[in-house]
Amino acid sequence: MIYEDYEIFTPGPVKMSKEILEIGAKQTPYFRNQEFSNVLLSCESDLLELLNAPKDSRVIFLTASGTAGLESVIMNLFSKDDKAIVINGGGFGQRFVDLCKSYNINHNEIVVNNSNLSNIEDEINPEDCNTFIVNAHETSVGHLYDLDAIGKFCKENKLLNIVDAISMFITDEIDMQKHNIDSVILSSQKGLGLPPGLTMVVLNEKAIARIQDINSHYFDFKNYLNDGLRGQTPYTPCITIILQLEARLKQIKKDGGIEVSIQQAKELAEYFRKGIKNLPFEEFTPFMPNAMTTLTPSDDKSASDIVNILENKYKIMVCPNGGELKDKIFRVSHMGDMQKSDIDNLLNVLKDI
Amino acid sequence: MIYEDYEIFTPGPVKMSKEILEIGAKQTPYFRNQEFSNVLLSCESDLLELLNAPKDSRVIFLTASGTAGLESVIMNLFSKDDKAIVINGGGFGQRFVDLCKSYNINHNEIVVNNSNLSNIEDEINPEDCNTFIVNAHETSVGHLYDLDAIGKFCKENKLLNIVDAISMFITDEIDMQKHNIDSVILSSQKGLGLPPGLTMVVLNEKAIARIQDINSHYFDFKNYLNDGLRGQTPYTPCITIILQLEARLKQIKKDGGIEVSIQQAKELAEYFRKGIKNLPFEEFTPFMPNAMTTLTPSDDKSASDIVNILENKYKIMVCPNGGELKDKIFRVSHMGDMQKSDIDNLLNVLKDI
Repeated sequence: MIYEDYEIFTPGPVKMSKEILEIGAKQTPYFRNQEFSNVLLSCESDLLELLNAPKDSRVIFLTASGTAGLESVIMNLFSKDDKAIVINGGGFGQRFVDLCKSYNINHNEIVVNNSNLSNIEDEINPEDCNTFIVNAHETSVGHLYDLDAIGKFCKENKLLNIVDAISMFITDEIDMQKHNIDSVILSSQKGLGLPPGLTMVVLNEKAIARIQDINSHYFDFKNYLNDGLRGQTPYTPCITIILQLEARLKQIKKDGGIEVSIQQAKELAEYFRKGIKNLPFEEFTPFMPNAMTTLTPSDDKSASDIVNILENKYKIMVCPNGGELKDKIFRVSHMGDMQKSDIDNLLNVLKDI
Repeated sequence: MIYEDYEIFTPGPVKMSKEILEIGAKQTPYFRNQEFSNVLLSCESDLLELLNAPKDSRVIFLTASGTAGLESVIMNLFSKDDKAIVINGGGFGQRFVDLCKSYNINHNEIVVNNSNLSNIEDEINPEDCNTFIVNAHETSVGHLYDLDAIGKFCKENKLLNIVDAISMFITDEIDMQKHNIDSVILSSQKGLGLPPGLTMVVLNEKAIARIQDINSHYFDFKNYLNDGLRGQTPYTPCITIILQLEARLKQIKKDGGIEVSIQQAKELAEYFRKGIKNLPFEEFTPFMPNAMTTLTPSDDKSASDIVNILENKYKIMVCPNGGELKDKIFRVSHMGDMQKSDIDNLLNVLKDI
């Protein structure tokens, strides 16, 4: 198989634990029965707990990539009377903007570069908007926004707060009640450390009340919410990944809960960032998540050359960027089943090249 | 894990081979590189070969359930000037009808019960239609249509022929050139014997020429075809299942190709059907695929009771039906990594109960 003996530091897919891989090696069970319903209901309840979701929140399980999570939220939660502030700080913010355009959703695009929105009241005028959309961690550049400030701003201005938390859930803090968040989008192959293919949309009561009738069957939230009441999905789900999710969520809770998980990611990120202090790299942004570090070579090396050398000579996969950032930055994920020894390996190689 | 020691005879998920499960136990590799592109291009080329697709046909790989394949075809291949004949012989035919309604696609619904459409010219008037839609194997009842007769009918009447082959590919014959098929929909968790989560839409040149501009990003065929040229998908795919698909397709070719695969399924189906000859069951339809046998108890037993006894007492999962067929039929799949010894186990139990 390709890349079987490689160390992986990409922000999805990520290194998975032995326990998760063992489930991947098991026969996929039949699912239209109470036993599988119990699995899905347990996943829903554990996810809501880890997000500190308010009472009567729900989870929609989509067999799909993360973009389907973004798109389905745009499709389901907007009528012609709604208008969104969309934070665009990179490729995934742009995706939200493009989706709003495709679906004729009224929106104000706010291009953000050197801010984590801590002073959002000074930076954004809510005007006639009733919704806020942000990628909590803009993964294309490794930029984390201030969910606390955003949450207060949304509360003050009565904005439905939609947060793409795909690349920061369980490594960085997100709390639906504390941060006044109404909808959260998650995916399997990031912090959760599962194979790609499962995306989850979490909705509180306020977000559920915004659901529209739409043409789409595959992304029809009403249908998912209805079937989800009995622990089922309208269409055959990615059963194996859901079983892996169940195991992963139980493990997180057993290990001490979301705080422990965030603390571990923080320690790993700090360990890596301390390790590169004397190397010819600069951190690309001061607003880094625990999930990932984005580096710029501070000598005349090309980021893309470094990525290739790591891959070809050392069998280490870090994440390249495309376009105009290709030679400027590369990304090192701290998500998944990462240990300090993995980081040591990477640091040793970065010292060599 | 649930149902770990159960024998599975459901029409998706199905029993998977040791080789496929071993890939499920491996770390998911990074995918935005040439090595993964080579995997996807190899899957595309092998699928086209197994379907005997005409030159310049293409495959779209969707990380999604089979219904997304049906829906995306309806979304992409129809303008207001097109009109489809939709064969409705059960739950999945109904799904195509419902999708046509949701997307305002002109269509003639043809309800079919006791026919495999061998005499289609006598049964259906093409009128003003330019498209034909059929679930080759209507899995809800185990009914196989005559693709040969349908293909001739479509050729004579200049109908774009769209075939959902999800539950019959590699167990029953489907040949895009011989059967004049323009688009084929496939899924991972049926005959291919992989975990659920991957759906494929195959398009020949004529179908590609029908692709429309649509609002959807996640189901935008143009985008998939464009990225697919270099072996990539627009959004993170279900990498692990694609690696399993690559291995499975190579195995099918190594074992002698599609004819051998179909012959094996035929032998298994015949072996099972011979085995139930003296038991109190009747075959529900004379038009059975190799993929599956649908049985009606010929004594006064309830089909649903039999399903429950098999599950609870014997740890054997066959497939129940819902609604008005609940007590009348149950389904036994012959897809996946099935052996005669598995069938013997099931037959022995069916003799006992």
